[in-house]
Amino acid sequence: MASSRPFSCLNIVVFLCFFYVLPQVSLAAKARHFHWEVGYLFWSPDCVENPVMGINGQYPGPTIRAKAGDTVVVHLHNKLHTEGVVIHWHGIRQFETPWADGTASISQCVINPEETFVYRFKVDKAGTYFYHGHYGMQRSAGLYGSLIVDVADGEKEPFHYDGELNLLLSDWWHQNVHEQEIGLSSNPMRWIGEPQSILMNGKGQYNCSLAGHLSKKTSLCKLRADAQCAPPILHVLPNKTYRLRLASTTSLASLNLAIGHHKMVLVEADGNYVQPVTLDDIDIYSGESYSVLITTNQNPSMNYWVSLGVRGRHPATPPGLTILNYHPNTARPPSSPLPIHAAWDDYPHSKAIANKILALQGSPKPPTRYDRRIYLLNTQNKINGFTKWSINNVSLALPSTPYLGSIKFGLKGAFDHQSPPENFSSEYDVMKPPSNPNSTVSSGVYKLEFGKTIDVILQNANALNANVSEIHPWHLHGHDFWVLGYGEGKFSEEKHSKNLNLKNPPLRNTVVIFPYGWTAIRFVTDNPGVWAFHCHIEPHLHMGMGVIFAESVERIKNIPQAAIGCGMTAKMVMNNSHT
Amino acid sequence: MASSRPFSCLNIVVFLCFFYVLPQVSLAAKARHFHWEVGYLFWSPDCVENPVMGINGQYPGPTIRAKAGDTVVVHLHNKLHTEGVVIHWHGIRQFETPWADGTASISQCVINPEETFVYRFKVDKAGTYFYHGHYGMQRSAGLYGSLIVDVADGEKEPFHYDGELNLLLSDWWHQNVHEQEIGLSSNPMRWIGEPQSILMNGKGQYNCSLAGHLSKKTSLCKLRADAQCAPPILHVLPNKTYRLRLASTTSLASLNLAIGHHKMVLVEADGNYVQPVTLDDIDIYSGESYSVLITTNQNPSMNYWVSLGVRGRHPATPPGLTILNYHPNTARPPSSPLPIHAAWDDYPHSKAIANKILALQGSPKPPTRYDRRIYLLNTQNKINGFTKWSINNVSLALPSTPYLGSIKFGLKGAFDHQSPPENFSSEYDVMKPPSNPNSTVSSGVYKLEFGKTIDVILQNANALNANVSEIHPWHLHGHDFWVLGYGEGKFSEEKHSKNLNLKNPPLRNTVVIFPYGWTAIRFVTDNPGVWAFHCHIEPHLHMGMGVIFAESVERIKNIPQAAIGCGMTAKMVMNNSHT
Repeated sequence: MASSRPFSCLNIVVFLCFFYVLPQVSLAAKARHFHWEVGYLFWSPDCVENPVMGINGQYPGPTIRAKAGDTVVVHLHNKLHTEGVVIHWHGIRQFETPWADGTASISQCVINPEETFVYRFKVDKAGTYFYHGHYGMQRSAGLYGSLIVDVADGEKEPFHYDGELNLLLSDWWHQNVHEQEIGLSSNPMRWIGEPQSILMNGKGQYNCSLAGHLSKKTSLCKLRADAQCAPPILHVLPNKTYRLRLASTTSLASLNLAIGHHKMVLVEADGNYVQPVTLDDIDIYSGESYSVLITTNQNPSMNYWVSLGVRGRHPATPPGLTILNYHPNTARPPSSPLPIHAAWDDYPHSKAIANKILALQGSPKPPTRYDRRIYLLNTQNKINGFTKWSINNVSLALPSTPYLGSIKFGLKGAFDHQSPPENFSSEYDVMKPPSNPNSTVSSGVYKLEFGKTIDVILQNANALNANVSEIHPWHLHGHDFWVLGYGEGKFSEEKHSKNLNLKNPPLRNTVVIFPYGWTAIRFVTDNPGVWAFHCHIEPHLHMGMGVIFAESVERIKNIPQAAIGCGMTAKMVMNNSHT
Repeated sequence: MASSRPFSCLNIVVFLCFFYVLPQVSLAAKARHFHWEVGYLFWSPDCVENPVMGINGQYPGPTIRAKAGDTVVVHLHNKLHTEGVVIHWHGIRQFETPWADGTASISQCVINPEETFVYRFKVDKAGTYFYHGHYGMQRSAGLYGSLIVDVADGEKEPFHYDGELNLLLSDWWHQNVHEQEIGLSSNPMRWIGEPQSILMNGKGQYNCSLAGHLSKKTSLCKLRADAQCAPPILHVLPNKTYRLRLASTTSLASLNLAIGHHKMVLVEADGNYVQPVTLDDIDIYSGESYSVLITTNQNPSMNYWVSLGVRGRHPATPPGLTILNYHPNTARPPSSPLPIHAAWDDYPHSKAIANKILALQGSPKPPTRYDRRIYLLNTQNKINGFTKWSINNVSLALPSTPYLGSIKFGLKGAFDHQSPPENFSSEYDVMKPPSNPNSTVSSGVYKLEFGKTIDVILQNANALNANVSEIHPWHLHGHDFWVLGYGEGKFSEEKHSKNLNLKNPPLRNTVVIFPYGWTAIRFVTDNPGVWAFHCHIEPHLHMGMGVIFAESVERIKNIPQAAIGCGMTAKMVMNNSHT
């Protein structure tokens, strides 16, 4: 009977509360819950059907949108059949939640099939981020999506825009990642080769081209707008300013984005504001994210090309394409020529762009002195005939029991307790193939004390073959770092140290080392956790190209059960958990 | 200096001990240690290269050879990248070691990448066994090998033979198992289709035929003897008797083996002796093993065909072939016609063979009465549009935390605590598609008390499509059972119960239900553990075709840490383990 009374006392109270509370809630930080299932699906990212790792039946995964200060809560259920899974929240520093960093063997036990793990972390800083698998090569299998953090209510970005566009960039192979992994781990190694397609928001075209009408070689795509491989058209109004968010989760490809007839103003890099700088085109390495402003001030009766070309490797993949579509034009491919990207090996062009990225005035500045400087030489090596990448002659092999638990509880035998070297021989000739290509394997970690200023000099070198040195974008977990500078050849304390930029170095979480060059970064150990620092090229990490920083782990408390309930730390679940 | 004295006192002692101890050791039961690494390799089982799951770099895995009473100790290290793994020792009953049965989600936590699990179990009974993956569809990926137990020293087999031959039978797809799994789990379901090849000891021929010279359609194989797909030639001497061991680990195919001009005398089934019976050809269902005796009493100047055809499904796969090669002939393919297998749907032929398999005199007899009779109706169903197999309208979905630990420690919420039904509606028409194809999913178990005699009536039915009923070979873990009989249509207590064979029913671990038929089995609950009982067709199990028997779990003690160190039982590791 009660249910038939439309306005009971209780109803009125609820009604009043709702209107009273709502404004408070929308101003205050929120917990934003997501319920996700990871599973394989058949999908056609580039018009060719393949198994793809998706979330809730979609690929790429859903976009997370939150406001600075919010807590994101992802209930991640594993619906894979025999594979564990984790998800890394790329660019989120995970202050006070190092177990939520989503790195297998490092920050947590993998989530086994039919298990659910709850990722709960604060997004403390507005910016363009993304998330992706961080186990085996599951990122390459398609496990990724966008994570966008808006400024908190009442806050403003230091630039104006009328609308927003978002492109998550990736590369795609038709060979499934299991076979890719087997090939990379075979002797002789079978390289994965160049990607079949470049994708924007998980969409590309393999058998045809949007620019087929401009080419004699390739046929024009005939795609329904709802095809899984139909390009994500950028719909714009004339004479407006748009913020275009770009993030690259490529497995291998370094990219360059150019928009016909439009310049871009760079304003954000990896969730940090930068000095606005106008660019004709922008390089995006795997693991990086940017925001650029575009003003739609060109002839509004036309559409314009958005082109994404490959940098740093002899391209065997056609550029990814989409259309900047001025309203009210139909979204027809432009008849204008495609933007021309700089030659793939025009490194001066790439270095010029990298050197233009500087911190916005008022950004946090680095300490002027460092407490510890670690030199990391990147080399390609052989171990028992297997091809590997090594850092100071150590190729990283992750242990079965995650570091976070095994270090916290002082377990012996969970990983190699000898720390890897902090430097390399001064005799090493970075311009030549290694004179002794043999290397070693280890799961050792660099222990970092709390409250110290750490410099890392990333030193590139020649690979196994003569006259080959590759691009490596290095990504640090748990931190942003200042990029103090890039240089050619071998870093020299005397020559280069004094020229490092301490005035306005940009804060990043990912930075490139150019072929035969070095890159210097600085960060402060203010975030207890176990953090990977690694080349973001998926097969390179798979072949050992990374190091582990164990940062004041003794300060970590209340690790959730599920993060340590495996391997040698399973027995710690009973006494050391808060959930 | 000491090392230069050739016969020090110590040396003499060691020398004497060696000769003194050796005869004792060879008579006594042994612990036989194996160190295995599971990993993917590129391999060409049927002359086409594909990723294959192998052990120690070989496919199929190494053969285990032991003597009755020995303890087999397999140190299994997982070198897969993102997949857990377990190995089931098919036919070994695991008395007192139920945690070593190698069933994911049932008897143990999966072995995650870079972890090692030690399987330690007694092989108490001579016979022809095999081992295989029991997680997802890893058996279909190639994770299997032979396990042969000889009689203990001083014991004799109840038949004579001069030499031994061994064929492990399987079927092979070019689509990798991950894609097979995704297809089976898709809506609409994508069926895996018929295998590309039938393999003997992991070898078959896809693009050619050993009998190419007899056919206008297929070309003759030109294979080097060391090719991965070269057939396993059966080399024999004239006028001898050979024991041919056969075991089928097929994913799908029911097989029939015939040898040109040679009869076979069946002497063993699933590690149990049977009344010797002479057969022209023998059916082998997935999960079954046999020994047959062959006497090489034919024209010794010729070789003879060994042919393995497909039963029970319209064959789209050419027979697997090899050669019975009489010494000293070269191993050339015979010019005689291929043996002709009965038509794929000649079920009377198959039933005649099944009914000839009876226990050898002196074998253990079944109790004459049962304590409990469970009826299991096998149906194909739909659940939310997904195609499933169900038992009494319950499709089995395994939990994330293995039963053995969660039942032992009385954990709530680890699986569905409602037991599935023990019977089905008497109205159900097994000759027609289900009138309501909807089914349910559950992880519930049948609880069995210790020391009881259990009957199971396996009842086949029509599948989703009219006029389709399939073969299902059911395999029981932890037990042999007596096969009391097979029948047509629906089992009737009144009509059929009194005609069951209690005199000389064979002991088996796997038994077939024929289309539209029933099969009655009996076993005694003398082995505490959690035991799967399921259709051995890999995609059928994957789609839910199985049940779980939780047998007097309260009697199990000292479960090893590694078997429970995951999921909800991780926290039990500390207090309840002996290693």
